[in-house]
Amino acid sequence: MRIALALEYAGGGFTGWQSQANGRGVQDALERALAAIAGMPVRTIAAGRTDAGVHATMQIVHFDATVSRPDSAWVRGANAHLADAIAVQWAVPVPHGFHARFAATARHYSYVLLNRSVRPALLAGRVGWYHHPLDVAAMARAAPALEGTHDFSAFRAAECQANSPVKTLGVARVAGGGDWIRLEFTADAFLHHMIRNIVGALVRVGAGKAPESWIGELLAGRDRTRAAPTFAADGLYLTGADYDEQWGLPPTRRPLALPLAALQGRCGQNR
Amino acid sequence: MRIALALEYAGGGFTGWQSQANGRGVQDALERALAAIAGMPVRTIAAGRTDAGVHATMQIVHFDATVSRPDSAWVRGANAHLADAIAVQWAVPVPHGFHARFAATARHYSYVLLNRSVRPALLAGRVGWYHHPLDVAAMARAAPALEGTHDFSAFRAAECQANSPVKTLGVARVAGGGDWIRLEFTADAFLHHMIRNIVGALVRVGAGKAPESWIGELLAGRDRTRAAPTFAADGLYLTGADYDEQWGLPPTRRPLALPLAALQGRCGQNR
Repeated sequence: MRIALALEYAGGGFTGWQSQANGRGVQDALERALAAIAGMPVRTIAAGRTDAGVHATMQIVHFDATVSRPDSAWVRGANAHLADAIAVQWAVPVPHGFHARFAATARHYSYVLLNRSVRPALLAGRVGWYHHPLDVAAMARAAPALEGTHDFSAFRAAECQANSPVKTLGVARVAGGGDWIRLEFTADAFLHHMIRNIVGALVRVGAGKAPESWIGELLAGRDRTRAAPTFAADGLYLTGADYDEQWGLPPTRRPLALPLAALQGRCGQNR
Repeated sequence: MRIALALEYAGGGFTGWQSQANGRGVQDALERALAAIAGMPVRTIAAGRTDAGVHATMQIVHFDATVSRPDSAWVRGANAHLADAIAVQWAVPVPHGFHARFAATARHYSYVLLNRSVRPALLAGRVGWYHHPLDVAAMARAAPALEGTHDFSAFRAAECQANSPVKTLGVARVAGGGDWIRLEFTADAFLHHMIRNIVGALVRVGAGKAPESWIGELLAGRDRTRAAPTFAADGLYLTGADYDEQWGLPPTRRPLALPLAALQGRCGQNR
């Protein structure tokens, strides 16, 4: 029986999604918990292979179990075996044709950036930080140059194992107000470090160190060595993946409910 | 010279505000950092003596320094000596008559409660949690019975050292939507565990285990043994204190910008 599940996690204590020899991947923790419920080893596959320190409001995972357990065992049972920073949100049986990675038609990520002179304390490790004032409007005008189907080599990590650097970025948006900036990205798939490299480039524009047109030029140049440094993982959240309705899944997306009031002009009374 | 400063902290790793023999109070960490800048021991006094695990978006503190340093040294310099979970927000010289504790005319606290079947992961330790659905409207109707000047003995911890159980609660409000409930409290001062005991009682009402009128009866009974259990510290945030304008302080209040979108009907598109 194939089971799909949704996972929430704070990535700070992990080496990233992927299983590691030291056992400190999110996948390792999840597989240990599921194995305890199944009474046998379990191998999982996820929609997004998040980096070390990257968080998820909703990571979609599937695995095959040769034992039958009530759905609640894969949720509450697994959560009893998981550390505080990870929790299964739901689990449902799915047809064998379902695949958390290959059936995903899009991935959604948010990046939360604190823009004030003092570093974050309450949300240390949960948000990115830039200490000089950023021109959010300039960043917002520059970002859409990335939307569409492009060769994203300029934003690709050297270690990236993707077959092709060509991806379709459906959404690249920047919004902000007060101390907070939020960047939203949706694509069919992302290259390794692609979002953190894009955030680094947009911050350079926001800081006035490059013109708005630089983002499009960088993309066209396809040369990683010309781009800005990779931005910190701390502020990056996988917020879900899209799947065809035929799979009948519970919600596979959960937009970040983190420091949003600050980003909403009409909720400004909360600042 | 007397200096006032504002402090932000995540309380999870500390034994509470107050200095402890083991040195793990927030006060201990701050005094070590300030001493490093001053080159001599520094004693601090705070607006609110937060419990272990309680957070602050804005704790107001004062101390006396016999050495002169630029304001930025008390901010950036101190922050370089503080752990990730604590950061000084601002520091300014104040008249000697200023006192962070005795000059405060009101304290503001927020409690954030996650109300869903699955425990928090992304915000573990940062929010309270109740797994059965709560009737937020009933909690919101019950809370105002606490507003006004009352003997709050029913919500007072046995260890409380306050001279009097009579406090003036200006605001006791509950709002929520979706998985999130937020409780807001403003008073001249609070008794030990008063808010966490009030949250416990309101949750009992929300869970349908006590009628709305029970909150008023509990208050009138002044008997702690009849009340609900003390709720977890995890979701509690000191969000500032009020001072007379004569002191000329920078903002001394910063409402929580945490999972607010969920609580704002008109920002519901972010859920």
